[in-house]
Amino acid sequence: MGIVVVGSLAFDSVKTPSGQAERALGGSANYFSMAAHFFASVKIVGVVGHDFPQEHMGYLSARDIDILGITREKGKTFHWRGEYNENLNQAITIATELNVFADFSPKLPQHYRKTDLLFLANIDPELQEQVLRQCDAKLIALDTMNYWISSKPEALKRVISKVHILFLNDAELRQLTGEHNVVAAAKKALTMGPHTVVVKRGEYGAALFHGEQYFFTPAFPMEKVVDPTGAGDSFAGGFLGWINKYGSSWKQLKHAMIAGTALSSFVIEEFSFQHIGKLPYELIEQRMQKMQSYLHLN
Amino acid sequence: MGIVVVGSLAFDSVKTPSGQAERALGGSANYFSMAAHFFASVKIVGVVGHDFPQEHMGYLSARDIDILGITREKGKTFHWRGEYNENLNQAITIATELNVFADFSPKLPQHYRKTDLLFLANIDPELQEQVLRQCDAKLIALDTMNYWISSKPEALKRVISKVHILFLNDAELRQLTGEHNVVAAAKKALTMGPHTVVVKRGEYGAALFHGEQYFFTPAFPMEKVVDPTGAGDSFAGGFLGWINKYGSSWKQLKHAMIAGTALSSFVIEEFSFQHIGKLPYELIEQRMQKMQSYLHLN
Repeated sequence: MGIVVVGSLAFDSVKTPSGQAERALGGSANYFSMAAHFFASVKIVGVVGHDFPQEHMGYLSARDIDILGITREKGKTFHWRGEYNENLNQAITIATELNVFADFSPKLPQHYRKTDLLFLANIDPELQEQVLRQCDAKLIALDTMNYWISSKPEALKRVISKVHILFLNDAELRQLTGEHNVVAAAKKALTMGPHTVVVKRGEYGAALFHGEQYFFTPAFPMEKVVDPTGAGDSFAGGFLGWINKYGSSWKQLKHAMIAGTALSSFVIEEFSFQHIGKLPYELIEQRMQKMQSYLHLN
Repeated sequence: MGIVVVGSLAFDSVKTPSGQAERALGGSANYFSMAAHFFASVKIVGVVGHDFPQEHMGYLSARDIDILGITREKGKTFHWRGEYNENLNQAITIATELNVFADFSPKLPQHYRKTDLLFLANIDPELQEQVLRQCDAKLIALDTMNYWISSKPEALKRVISKVHILFLNDAELRQLTGEHNVVAAAKKALTMGPHTVVVKRGEYGAALFHGEQYFFTPAFPMEKVVDPTGAGDSFAGGFLGWINKYGSSWKQLKHAMIAGTALSSFVIEEFSFQHIGKLPYELIEQRMQKMQSYLHLN
């Protein structure tokens, strides 16, 4: 039955030390699907405005990504404008024009309402709850951000208590749990509901906490990162796509970390979907093998 | 023939979120030897003042650490006073009283002058050069710090061109090479002389660059770090002790990363040498096995 993802479809205007992109395609649901579809069938729930290109809808459909859950509303598509300085780990938001996303009220088509896996990308936790009420999913994963942790902590904690896999970066994990030490913070997050916590650490890689078990993967070593936008969502896409295909045993959770790392590495090599949008599957396999060799001791 | 280390023996007064220690034993050569002696015989070159405790000399000797290269001079022992806030990755220096260390002029005893391995801990690069002229070593490793990179770049680059293994943290590597991206910076450092660059990344772990090869080890996952002082030198001690014992093939370099990580994890669990000073070898083996399990994919 594949994966249902609820999140944003957006235009991103991004400036980094490597250059800039103006109104390039982006958004969490977009990045997630572009990564996950290599392993799983994906259904998107989201909203776009009149200015969102029909070609991109065709592009998604051509990859067997179900777009029937995307509604087109009057008004403009969500637009994020941001910058990264040399420290590519931290985005600086210049402007957030929510536009049609301001009134987003996710409604799942009937054929979305029973699924293997649901990914609640970073949106208002009250909307994440609204989605949960509409969807019978065997496995639920969630991403969020500092804004929701500080503005809607109660709603967020309610929805976190109902999910299985939590994706956060270091700073968000610290903020959510009030623990500075990442190991202590992850263990605390594991008491809040999820059985699995994935800590995204940017250029340092990602850490996986699952009950008493621990695994760490470095980032794919790259001499140049062009644009980190979408790294987290494509990581989640690769990760959840993988476990949708291969199951969520401890072994496969670890391989899912490798898959997420590989997919996100293609995203950050170029602006927007320039690389991941035309990626042959063999390249993903090659990069996953390289990642495995970096962890291989003997 | 073992390892010769040239560096500091010191008192450290340290304040961290977990507490504080006043005039506790420290210094790069001290931390290095305490870690390396589990795998290799170590000879120290350094200087102490009249106030340095004789018991500690006995303690080192009892562990087969050769202290004949330590001279005792009139005056006080080097004293560093520093603090760490919640971000334990970054020490804040409050005071550096060089004392007898200000006139340190390393002279190697005759039986130190031919060795398997020489570790030039973080001291003035001109002194590191002076040591090189006195010592015939098969393998040479070096550590340094931001102060020398900015104040004596030419001397430092000369000495780096003669060493095989370079230990640096992220910030030092960036400063040395002028490259922000750590992968690009490490590759540049590999053109400066060393065949191996070890990038110490604090709570994130450490990266190993060796020709075209790459390996990464996460830090040992700890819910509480009491005092990061000595982490880098004990890492180098575990690493170089390991390759002194098992050789420096690509496989053993990777295992050396695990050994360094394990040894430094014991140091940062307590102030000064409280833990590493009474560590049974079995605990090191246990922790190395745990580290291996964190990297094990299948």
